[in-house]
Amino acid sequence: MTPIASTVAFDVRWGECDPAGIVYHPNYLDWFSVARMRLLADYGLPYMTSFHDNGVVLVVLEATCSFKKVVRVDDHVSVRATLTDLSRTRMSVLYKVVDAAHQTCAVGHTHHAFVDLLDHAPVNVAKRCPQLWEKLSALWPKP
Amino acid sequence: MTPIASTVAFDVRWGECDPAGIVYHPNYLDWFSVARMRLLADYGLPYMTSFHDNGVVLVVLEATCSFKKVVRVDDHVSVRATLTDLSRTRMSVLYKVVDAAHQTCAVGHTHHAFVDLLDHAPVNVAKRCPQLWEKLSALWPKP
Amino acid sequence: MTPIASTVAFDVRWGECDPAGIVYHPNYLDWFSVARMRLLADYGLPYMTSFHDNGVVLVVLEATCSFKKVVRVDDHVSVRATLTDLSRTRMSVLYKVVDAAHQTCAVGHTHHAFVDLLDHAPVNVAKRCPQLWEKLSALWPKP
Amino acid sequence: MTPIASTVAFDVRWGECDPAGIVYHPNYLDWFSVARMRLLADYGLPYMTSFHDNGVVLVVLEATCSFKKVVRVDDHVSVRATLTDLSRTRMSVLYKVVDAAHQTCAVGHTHHAFVDLLDHAPVNVAKRCPQLWEKLSALWPKP
Repeated sequence: MTPIASTVAFDVRWGECDPAGIVYHPNYLDWFSVARMRLLADYGLPYMTSFHDNGVVLVVLEATCSFKKVVRVDDHVSVRATLTDLSRTRMSVLYKVVDAAHQTCAVGHTHHAFVDLLDHAPVNVAKRCPQLWEKLSALWPKP
Repeated sequence: MTPIASTVAFDVRWGECDPAGIVYHPNYLDWFSVARMRLLADYGLPYMTSFHDNGVVLVVLEATCSFKKVVRVDDHVSVRATLTDLSRTRMSVLYKVVDAAHQTCAVGHTHHAFVDLLDHAPVNVAKRCPQLWEKLSALWPKP
Repeated sequence: MTPIASTVAFDVRWGECDPAGIVYHPNYLDWFSVARMRLLADYGLPYMTSFHDNGVVLVVLEATCSFKKVVRVDDHVSVRATLTDLSRTRMSVLYKVVDAAHQTCAVGHTHHAFVDLLDHAPVNVAKRCPQLWEKLSALWPKP
Repeated sequence: MTPIASTVAFDVRWGECDPAGIVYHPNYLDWFSVARMRLLADYGLPYMTSFHDNGVVLVVLEATCSFKKVVRVDDHVSVRATLTDLSRTRMSVLYKVVDAAHQTCAVGHTHHAFVDLLDHAPVNVAKRCPQLWEKLSALWPKP
């Protein structure tokens, strides 16, 4: 099956680096967010209009990152986000950060739940937003 | 054995929250950093003078966080960091984020290696900085 | 007249510093936000319940900062925010960042307008939220 | 005279926005930094190798920003940085943030001094790094 995936390029910003001269590690999770939103947008599901404006938040349940190689100011990296799981209530994404020399700098994943924007209660997307679910489920056909 | 642990209180900042009105999740890793440095300082090992100025970086190998309960602007949380492993080349810390109602909002951990500030090569702290290792190892006696 | 002012203490975070080893300057504006919200809260006007939940945003029209002395990781600074102007549509605040040795590290100000949360149109607070205006105007009596 | 200027495009990140759904204003200063470094790099003076590795910091003396129009998640903006002053000890840059509809969203400037990386004392670039000054001064010929 063709992976559902998108890649975003980043020029490392001065302000993303710490006094050790390397990317401050929480910023990898920020890059993951950017890549995840690009993934959704690339497949016809821009986050703001498809989720947020429908009152659905893709809240993070778990985030992990393994750091393999330090990244410095002005380095060019790309982050590839790949959909790894999807249901009416959950979504998971895998991330790989690669530098200009094609070396893997970090690998991570995030697990998400769909929740209500106001009360943060779990949401069944198929019931709450059938049109959104139609598009989402098309990405991830049940075997 | 008495845990080697420290707790830091945080008033959630407006700028730490996202358009969903909740703390943007990478900021939990920033809080973990603050709590980890406080832990080191509380036990006589302030990071800048004990590590950084000796050319040793406590680089992050892996970071994880599980999010249990959303945290909002103006919420008061505390982050407790507990040392869970220590060797001449590695260190691990566990974190627990608790809100004002004593509910657990998040749990995470970070694994670290000691590396050289300039070339990022692994460092054996006992060899590189015997005085630093003397203090570190006193915290974590071998059984 | 007694100044309407509040002071917040900050322990400089590792993640707030850049590869030059000093506080990355945009973070001063973040500290100003924290100090401004503390000022409002100290005078009975917590931002979330008094403004945000009433659909009023204290949008920034202008922000400036002059940097006098660099601040480093682990430095302790305090930021004093002083109300310098207030009307039915505008508010201005002055900030002074002082280090542990009482030296001035930075001085700045922000000018704000009250706008609607949804359409960002200017809001006359006295008309939109008379109760909020009652409290605000008590802080800043017309001569 | 042809302006010394560079433009950088930004897709506004989710994590750059606050609970009001708009870009958190300190992030404009971060964009200015990115644009300023791009400006230097475009004219043959990449910051890390030209300044930082020579022990020279382009410290910020003053930063200002006027906000004209709010910017939201997923908006596309471009930031144009233009050199407005340069001497052996100082540098100034003007910034203009424009959205996809060519409307001006913000205007700002930063004034900088060249200082030593270690002791933060003022540096005369012409004396300290003649080769760097040769390139810099070529950008900004005295009338």
